[in-house]
Amino acid sequence: MSHKIAILGASGYTGAELVRIIATHPGMDIVALSGDRKAGQPMESVFPHLRHLDLPDLVRIEEIDFSGVDLAFCALPHATSQAVIKGLPGDLRVVDLSADFRLRDPAAYERWYGKPHGAPELQEEAVYGLTEFYRDDIRAARLVAGTGCNAAAGQFALRPLISAGAVDLDDIIIDLKAGVSGAGRALKENLLHAELSEGFHAYAVGSTHRHLGEFDQEFSALAGRPVQVQFTPHLIPANRGILATVWVKGDPQVIHATLAGAYAAEPFLHVLPMGQAPSTRHVRGSNFAHIGVVGDRRPGRAMVIVAIDNLTKGSSGQAVQNANLMLGLKETEGLMLAPCFP
Amino acid sequence: MSHKIAILGASGYTGAELVRIIATHPGMDIVALSGDRKAGQPMESVFPHLRHLDLPDLVRIEEIDFSGVDLAFCALPHATSQAVIKGLPGDLRVVDLSADFRLRDPAAYERWYGKPHGAPELQEEAVYGLTEFYRDDIRAARLVAGTGCNAAAGQFALRPLISAGAVDLDDIIIDLKAGVSGAGRALKENLLHAELSEGFHAYAVGSTHRHLGEFDQEFSALAGRPVQVQFTPHLIPANRGILATVWVKGDPQVIHATLAGAYAAEPFLHVLPMGQAPSTRHVRGSNFAHIGVVGDRRPGRAMVIVAIDNLTKGSSGQAVQNANLMLGLKETEGLMLAPCFP
Amino acid sequence: MSHKIAILGASGYTGAELVRIIATHPGMDIVALSGDRKAGQPMESVFPHLRHLDLPDLVRIEEIDFSGVDLAFCALPHATSQAVIKGLPGDLRVVDLSADFRLRDPAAYERWYGKPHGAPELQEEAVYGLTEFYRDDIRAARLVAGTGCNAAAGQFALRPLISAGAVDLDDIIIDLKAGVSGAGRALKENLLHAELSEGFHAYAVGSTHRHLGEFDQEFSALAGRPVQVQFTPHLIPANRGILATVWVKGDPQVIHATLAGAYAAEPFLHVLPMGQAPSTRHVRGSNFAHIGVVGDRRPGRAMVIVAIDNLTKGSSGQAVQNANLMLGLKETEGLMLAPCFP
Amino acid sequence: MSHKIAILGASGYTGAELVRIIATHPGMDIVALSGDRKAGQPMESVFPHLRHLDLPDLVRIEEIDFSGVDLAFCALPHATSQAVIKGLPGDLRVVDLSADFRLRDPAAYERWYGKPHGAPELQEEAVYGLTEFYRDDIRAARLVAGTGCNAAAGQFALRPLISAGAVDLDDIIIDLKAGVSGAGRALKENLLHAELSEGFHAYAVGSTHRHLGEFDQEFSALAGRPVQVQFTPHLIPANRGILATVWVKGDPQVIHATLAGAYAAEPFLHVLPMGQAPSTRHVRGSNFAHIGVVGDRRPGRAMVIVAIDNLTKGSSGQAVQNANLMLGLKETEGLMLAPCFP
Repeated sequence: MSHKIAILGASGYTGAELVRIIATHPGMDIVALSGDRKAGQPMESVFPHLRHLDLPDLVRIEEIDFSGVDLAFCALPHATSQAVIKGLPGDLRVVDLSADFRLRDPAAYERWYGKPHGAPELQEEAVYGLTEFYRDDIRAARLVAGTGCNAAAGQFALRPLISAGAVDLDDIIIDLKAGVSGAGRALKENLLHAELSEGFHAYAVGSTHRHLGEFDQEFSALAGRPVQVQFTPHLIPANRGILATVWVKGDPQVIHATLAGAYAAEPFLHVLPMGQAPSTRHVRGSNFAHIGVVGDRRPGRAMVIVAIDNLTKGSSGQAVQNANLMLGLKETEGLMLAPCFP
Repeated sequence: MSHKIAILGASGYTGAELVRIIATHPGMDIVALSGDRKAGQPMESVFPHLRHLDLPDLVRIEEIDFSGVDLAFCALPHATSQAVIKGLPGDLRVVDLSADFRLRDPAAYERWYGKPHGAPELQEEAVYGLTEFYRDDIRAARLVAGTGCNAAAGQFALRPLISAGAVDLDDIIIDLKAGVSGAGRALKENLLHAELSEGFHAYAVGSTHRHLGEFDQEFSALAGRPVQVQFTPHLIPANRGILATVWVKGDPQVIHATLAGAYAAEPFLHVLPMGQAPSTRHVRGSNFAHIGVVGDRRPGRAMVIVAIDNLTKGSSGQAVQNANLMLGLKETEGLMLAPCFP
Repeated sequence: MSHKIAILGASGYTGAELVRIIATHPGMDIVALSGDRKAGQPMESVFPHLRHLDLPDLVRIEEIDFSGVDLAFCALPHATSQAVIKGLPGDLRVVDLSADFRLRDPAAYERWYGKPHGAPELQEEAVYGLTEFYRDDIRAARLVAGTGCNAAAGQFALRPLISAGAVDLDDIIIDLKAGVSGAGRALKENLLHAELSEGFHAYAVGSTHRHLGEFDQEFSALAGRPVQVQFTPHLIPANRGILATVWVKGDPQVIHATLAGAYAAEPFLHVLPMGQAPSTRHVRGSNFAHIGVVGDRRPGRAMVIVAIDNLTKGSSGQAVQNANLMLGLKETEGLMLAPCFP
Repeated sequence: MSHKIAILGASGYTGAELVRIIATHPGMDIVALSGDRKAGQPMESVFPHLRHLDLPDLVRIEEIDFSGVDLAFCALPHATSQAVIKGLPGDLRVVDLSADFRLRDPAAYERWYGKPHGAPELQEEAVYGLTEFYRDDIRAARLVAGTGCNAAAGQFALRPLISAGAVDLDDIIIDLKAGVSGAGRALKENLLHAELSEGFHAYAVGSTHRHLGEFDQEFSALAGRPVQVQFTPHLIPANRGILATVWVKGDPQVIHATLAGAYAAEPFLHVLPMGQAPSTRHVRGSNFAHIGVVGDRRPGRAMVIVAIDNLTKGSSGQAVQNANLMLGLKETEGLMLAPCFP
């Protein structure tokens, strides 16, 4: 039996990525697509690569009859999500891909996002969607908050190490590199091809990137004390991919063994042999994470390097993985697409 | 029931693309992979993006026991294929991705490839693998010769037009643009990133590209008289994709109607509305072809533009499509992967 | 002695390219830069790559004192130019980089640009700025209209051939490929990195590109009869460069000899040996054009391939070349910068 | 008066970059070019972008008459340089771009390069070519050893800080990102466009990159005690550019003031306003370095980010800067080329 799916905000990249994945998912059928500014258009005029699919036209959210919908993915911009989800039927399963429900503490939300939360009761209900660490809660959840794509990459590197006390909590540096699709389909000068290609730079410098809020929340909870990592992202002149180079103090062998042990049974998280480094190109278009651990010539120092596709494992693939759990499907259903290389 | 598959020459890009597609194909299991120079290595050391799959190690061809193999894909270099296939069991189904069996006339083969054919009896047996036009022959074939990737793109534009007499046969220009993966994983200076990226040029100029041999064979047979198109490829600084801009003399409306009619029932060939032009990015990683027809301000002149992914519809996807037919599977099985954009 | 230069519209790519060239030009000093939306900003905040130069801040045009200016480059958007230039001192030398003064016939202007010309008396005065063919007129001109970048590439291929009667005037196809910077620094979805990179497509299909107006004007004048070429541009996923592949009917040897003869003394136009094809990467960032001629297997047919950098030879380099003539400087002054490869 | 220049190893990228710079250098004339495997060829067949220059053909080194040569640039592969330079006239000025003479300690050389040095007396004579810090020595030198490109970037960030004691010497992390041209024109699978583009990864992991030898030598000498930084490079899918993100412990304001003070009079080193981050695209093709300093939310921690072009400031531009000093020319002569953006 196939579950009926609505995608709100289907005219952005994470919306399109959801459709791409669900296109070959045996347990999901798309019954509604919303896209406010493009309402009335067929999906193929917004995303011609989906032309071969028999999809409903884009509509405004209020035009959707949710009575026949089993689960809604909400791929709307930050801040819009909270207003929209508040208005949905209270028993509708929702996977939100925005930042609106990631932070549990209303004060933290206000600090990082600059205004009070508009749906604090939903914020309290929402489960943080890092599947591998919140499986049981997600299975039982009605509302799941997809994680930040950078936040996912950093946590795959660090959660087991923090839990195990394998690294110095006060000296963690996440030097992250992210592909341009993470910024969405926004009309900004710095996202133009002529501005971006053939170059490289850091952005959101000075501890201003909002995913720091997720790191603080999750790492502090794991450690049972405040943890503040250092984190700066850079922009890769490529469309997809996140490489998180995480510099830590700890024993490289212990770090490798801890991660390999923690992820031994995970279908999507692959720890490479000791000393090998992953590449974003080898996870492109897939839900896999490749994780490498490398020692330094200086004892007690190491790098953990994580490669994911920001649109898939970092966003829409994670969302489908969570939806699978919420709908009682096999967690890997529809998600074993092999990476697209070259 | 799943069919047992061997891939000969699995260390090149078309080999890897076969594995990528078969990874989620419900009717095929890979039981053997060969790669002479990399024999003894696990596939993940040659193609780390396939790390999540449970694949056999690469071996030398002579190490493979073909008795349990239902079909072999042969993704070896040109000229190697004919020697290898001659040595395989005579009843083994084979889909060859090289150029070795595309030309039926031994003299034409020798002219384009510079030496006599080494297995003329197989050359005679082989069926030309342009699925949409040779379906019945392919279904009954033991040996199918995959087409050239550029040759496929050009034929999708022109075959129905030539059959219908809709274009002037003496004034056909195929100005083609191809991504770099079409050249394979070869160590050539002109394939280096520093040489290729941020630039654009024509290659194989002066009617020297070997796919002209396929155009000549196929178009002349269709027309019942010699047809010689003009054809020059250019190199796109991108990994995947072919865009064939075909300049023809004929009525644009008739041309569009002819193509739309010919392909109306085809699952992979999509003719865009009149006047729209396709893009390679919208078929990337998929088995689809997008076909556009555009008129000129000068009456009686038109462009037919075809976009395919050279590695998928132009090569490995086509090969799986043919294998599906040969094995009695549904033609689209495993091939409905949506394009990977952005 | 150095000439005083103003650049109007310095916040776009052609403006920046003018500054880049003039930075090492021994005969020009920049005394004013305008940029309406960015007025008040230092140039380095708009173009950080020019940080090392001692440049005036951006101002609004009406703030500039033109009494001390010897020549103004006008790099404003189409349609804006005609209004602005009409308001400049009548004796100020102006090189306009927009499309406003390229077409001499008011009716042709209105047909291609969709509205009547706002300064027909200037339109009449303006000299068409294809330096190699209008040298004497440019030397004496007060107002020079820079050509379209695609129009320049196509004319380098064809003008001598049309003048010499070396090609069939009724069967000329210009299949052109252009880098993305030609579209300017405009906030359009189709110019985003995520939309453009790793793909290829035709645009302005159906004879709608406005540079056709220039081809019609110039080629018809040369031929003494109406000439209508076929012309479609494609977008290269690269920032700079135009490759014009021009398909013609004529004798390849005659074509090569005609072009080699016509350009033998030209400092910037280089005809390659017969049979060689140029590449955009080999002219990047320079004022050079590389021109190749290749025969076809079919007698009497040939390709002329022209590579230029759209921002340099196609626009700002051409503009400086013209300004050199207008100011009595050596034509090549400041323009011998070698291409930047890789 | 123009100085006579020979370039040994002119068929690689640093050789071509030397020619590109010298092409518009008023004080240097190229009189000889060597390229062993390409001896006998005109330079334009090896580097078509230099076609417009009147250059000598490539020859074998032993064919060059050095009696008329004022200075030789040696752009040969590592290890080859020491043998070649030993055989040159003892009074010939030489700027070596290889790694052969960067390390002063023969034991350190052997440790990092795996074999004893072949010309220890030259090793002793050679001056380390980081111009801004060895100006007087370079002016008087006969043999100057160009620095590693990554080593240059890291030192621009750190030398003044180490000298001033402004950062913790035991916690310096250089997370570096380098464009692909730094690997040279070598036929390696991992340098192919299809392997590199659209991806990102770390290489030379585990403290194995040889430029660590330079960091150790220079930083320890400055500090008067052993200093061992952590350093890992990553590969940017772009041809040119190095971005060194240097994570340090120290007061951000002090760090910014120290760098701004140290470089206030430097023509090529530009320290950005506090809190701004540089981009490689803004130094492309130029000899400039852009240096940014950014604080962290955690007090006493900062990032210094340096952007250079690896082929120019990181190699051939630095070499010309040093040659200018050795020949008594103005240090900036020929080097004020503006960056090529976009």
